[in-house]
Amino acid sequence: MKTIDFTKLARRNIRSLKPYEAKEIPCKVKLDANESPYSLPENIFMKKNIFRSLNRYPDPDAKELKKTVAKNFKVNIGNILLGNGSDELIYYLITAFEGPVLYPVPTFSMYGIISKASGEKAIGIPLDKDFDLDTDKMLAAVKKYNPKLVFLSSPNNPTGNCFSADRILKIIEASKGIVVVDEAYQPFSSEKGFLPLLGDYKNLAILRTLSKIGFAALRVGFLIGDPGMIKEVNKVRLPFNLNSASQALALEAFKRKKIVNSQIKNITSERERLLEELDNIGGISPYPSEANFILFRAKNANIVYHRLIKEGVLIRNLGKAIKDALRVTIGTPEENGFFITALRKSVGGKK
Amino acid sequence: MKTIDFTKLARRNIRSLKPYEAKEIPCKVKLDANESPYSLPENIFMKKNIFRSLNRYPDPDAKELKKTVAKNFKVNIGNILLGNGSDELIYYLITAFEGPVLYPVPTFSMYGIISKASGEKAIGIPLDKDFDLDTDKMLAAVKKYNPKLVFLSSPNNPTGNCFSADRILKIIEASKGIVVVDEAYQPFSSEKGFLPLLGDYKNLAILRTLSKIGFAALRVGFLIGDPGMIKEVNKVRLPFNLNSASQALALEAFKRKKIVNSQIKNITSERERLLEELDNIGGISPYPSEANFILFRAKNANIVYHRLIKEGVLIRNLGKAIKDALRVTIGTPEENGFFITALRKSVGGKK
Repeated sequence: MKTIDFTKLARRNIRSLKPYEAKEIPCKVKLDANESPYSLPENIFMKKNIFRSLNRYPDPDAKELKKTVAKNFKVNIGNILLGNGSDELIYYLITAFEGPVLYPVPTFSMYGIISKASGEKAIGIPLDKDFDLDTDKMLAAVKKYNPKLVFLSSPNNPTGNCFSADRILKIIEASKGIVVVDEAYQPFSSEKGFLPLLGDYKNLAILRTLSKIGFAALRVGFLIGDPGMIKEVNKVRLPFNLNSASQALALEAFKRKKIVNSQIKNITSERERLLEELDNIGGISPYPSEANFILFRAKNANIVYHRLIKEGVLIRNLGKAIKDALRVTIGTPEENGFFITALRKSVGGKK
Repeated sequence: MKTIDFTKLARRNIRSLKPYEAKEIPCKVKLDANESPYSLPENIFMKKNIFRSLNRYPDPDAKELKKTVAKNFKVNIGNILLGNGSDELIYYLITAFEGPVLYPVPTFSMYGIISKASGEKAIGIPLDKDFDLDTDKMLAAVKKYNPKLVFLSSPNNPTGNCFSADRILKIIEASKGIVVVDEAYQPFSSEKGFLPLLGDYKNLAILRTLSKIGFAALRVGFLIGDPGMIKEVNKVRLPFNLNSASQALALEAFKRKKIVNSQIKNITSERERLLEELDNIGGISPYPSEANFILFRAKNANIVYHRLIKEGVLIRNLGKAIKDALRVTIGTPEENGFFITALRKSVGGKK
């Protein structure tokens, strides 16, 4: 039989690539993935036949869902592309426009991973000491590399802050390519975000998602921007990228906006409580947050992380990106209480 | 405000690309998309809470589903990659291994569309007069272009026949790249397919799907092949490409294999009946089929196609690929009867 070295057969830049690992460590309290701790109070499956027929292909244009999304974000249907999660929309953006791809670091890891998987040049520019955009360096990179795509996650994952609006605007103004403001965490922010500015900047695009506000299971993301941009990205979209269940359930999600908004309110008020609590624990330095998670520094962060797992709490270890940093997702009041108790124990004990 | 020509900003080969259009023409009888006419006899949503929690991300490895798929196809878990439909797996294959991509024509259009969307060279080699692989030309193309990927849809869409096994084997043996046998329609075929040969050819990969056997709504496809190949493709897979609903419902689909198999039996016996009926209509020349559709030639095919729509039957007009050719998906006995009556009327009338 022929032997084949598939690693050699693969695209050159993929050879050394490692797949994104979403580690599943079973824990009593799961605060690692920036999911909402709340589901819907009802079982929406039991309510009615959630979609017409299993044997038929999904609506390739997801017309009903697009209409609802357009109404919700106060844009036109031509401004919207739907994705199997924002991840897929990032993939399509990079496939349609190529690189170079520019983003600050640390940020959402998929910008870099997908750029590399697609064989495109990826440029990461360090944030400044306040985790804000380093305007000089970013503008220099825009000038030097002329990136086709700039990804700015604001509020930024994993740092939790919004980038200064004026710095984002400077980058939009300086860029000949598309600046994608990824507003996955916008619903938790006190700032109003960039949707209102869409009409002012043709090269501004915005990503939103259902994943952080209670519907991560569905994988539904939204790309919102100029119709000309949407049209190009749509050329590389797979025709049935959003399955029937996701389309139907996303519609149900929008119908329950009131419940979802009250859940978001619970999460942001819990965030403020948790920030105070963290501030009062010796050796723990939390950063302010506009998202549904808190980044904090901890003495011996690695040890604390593993002790927390033993206590039954899974959070995210960010030591590779930011020294001694951990990230905790805001849970229910009970989960947060459990986490704080476990954290106190974990930092207090001996090494 | 800056003006941007997004078409110029896009990747060169995307500029002239047209998105795949899945036209939705509302008709009483829908026999255009090779869907199964049968859904499940029950509403599986009503039965139980179909998945754990809306607010949690899907299992990134779809472990339960993979286990079931492995058992079903008698392979190991390491031989399998799951996709949001086979479309996504074709995308990932091309992203991971690049082009040139070789396939016979006419065939499933997505091989060419995705190759072009990804910026890869796509080579289509005409089938011979019996719609079988033109071995000489295919082997010459393998030699000339050294394709990283060869896609062979067998049974082939839209022609309906299986390619000769010995011709497929010659291509596998001559190729240094991967030969993907797309067996989307295999469940309807009398031949046994290429799964049993996986162990013999390291560069053989197989695509299977739930879309043609009653679950098109879910978008679940399977890539089956050498673990080394799967590992490379997995590097470019988005971590949560299969949402929770699809994972859960695909599991339910496999549990109902007995029902699904009896539906397949109904479809293949209806196919034989329909073939006879078509053969008896003047001006209609059907081709034999190993799939869940029949390709046929019709005098004035274009007129017949539009007359059928007026009668309430939507089939596929393939005139662009094969002169005067139409493709009808096998429906329920009632739908097929309705189609035959409508077709008789449509060919019989004056121009």
